[in-house]
Amino acid sequence: MSRGTARMTDTKKVSGELFSLTYGALVAQILKDYENVDDVNRQLEKMGYNIGVRIVEDFLARTNTSKCTDFRETSEKIQQAFKLFLNVSPQVTSWSAANDEFSLIFETNPVGEFVELPEKCSNLKYANILCGAVRGALEMVHLEVASWFLQDTLTGDNVTEMRIKFLKKIEDSVQIGRAHV
Amino acid sequence: MSRGTARMTDTKKVSGELFSLTYGALVAQILKDYENVDDVNRQLEKMGYNIGVRIVEDFLARTNTSKCTDFRETSEKIQQAFKLFLNVSPQVTSWSAANDEFSLIFETNPVGEFVELPEKCSNLKYANILCGAVRGALEMVHLEVASWFLQDTLTGDNVTEMRIKFLKKIEDSVQIGRAHV
Repeated sequence: MSRGTARMTDTKKVSGELFSLTYGALVAQILKDYENVDDVNRQLEKMGYNIGVRIVEDFLARTNTSKCTDFRETSEKIQQAFKLFLNVSPQVTSWSAANDEFSLIFETNPVGEFVELPEKCSNLKYANILCGAVRGALEMVHLEVASWFLQDTLTGDNVTEMRIKFLKKIEDSVQIGRAHV
Repeated sequence: MSRGTARMTDTKKVSGELFSLTYGALVAQILKDYENVDDVNRQLEKMGYNIGVRIVEDFLARTNTSKCTDFRETSEKIQQAFKLFLNVSPQVTSWSAANDEFSLIFETNPVGEFVELPEKCSNLKYANILCGAVRGALEMVHLEVASWFLQDTLTGDNVTEMRIKFLKKIEDSVQIGRAHV
């Protein structure tokens, strides 16, 4: 769906339960559409990328964010974005020695708190849309990252852990936000 | 996705923009999956039905609602549910003479405020998930209704209008919430 020209003012909040159920319907639909779970994970990531590309503008406008000086500052912005959009407060932790990779720890799966996965879905990255959203949003501010889930409460882990790794700065001349639409 | 046994406490609110974009991704996926728009509309309605069946419990618990004495009272509860879950306040209007049918008028499409539909989607009932949600939720409280969109700002109308018609009371003996899963 394309977005209109009207400036978004995202003061409206909606029910977390309604969001979770709607996201659940989306995941169920994709599971129906793709034969193997890896493709489902990939598709969810792509959808998230498209959302991230769009939603970053709103984040920047509402938080009055200027350019980050390092990846630690970026991690704080990502943490803030999770609070702003999903109303969850992940912990930033497990930094790599080079300060180019960290984890976000969520107490529960932030988009599937009340979900139980069927057994055949043990490889499903249920919240993979969020990895895509982080990647898409950061690409719009000229940071290329990789993002993936290491742990998930939905598959029996104690926490849900998203890993985010800095890959490179994107030069101004490269067209961004178009790579995976 | 099945829901766990934990009692849902839906105090968490999430971003309306994130919800809209996620719902947009869902609609786009269904559009990809089904050849004709009528099937898309039907599928969205079914998904909404499943959501309504689940979410009604939360509504009843949070609003301490007891049995409605007539369909006018039901209309007020539906209006209240839209406020609670989607943070929109539709107007209840255009009652039939028999008091068995009314309209909810929304200033804009409540799940697609920033959406622009491609021309080939002029018959798409973008928010049809909401018709299904209303039908599913009311079925759980033993009311069979029909619900459909008469107008939609996304296709050029001045308002978005959902029509809801009382069909019959469902006897206790009939198994509900299973008809269209």
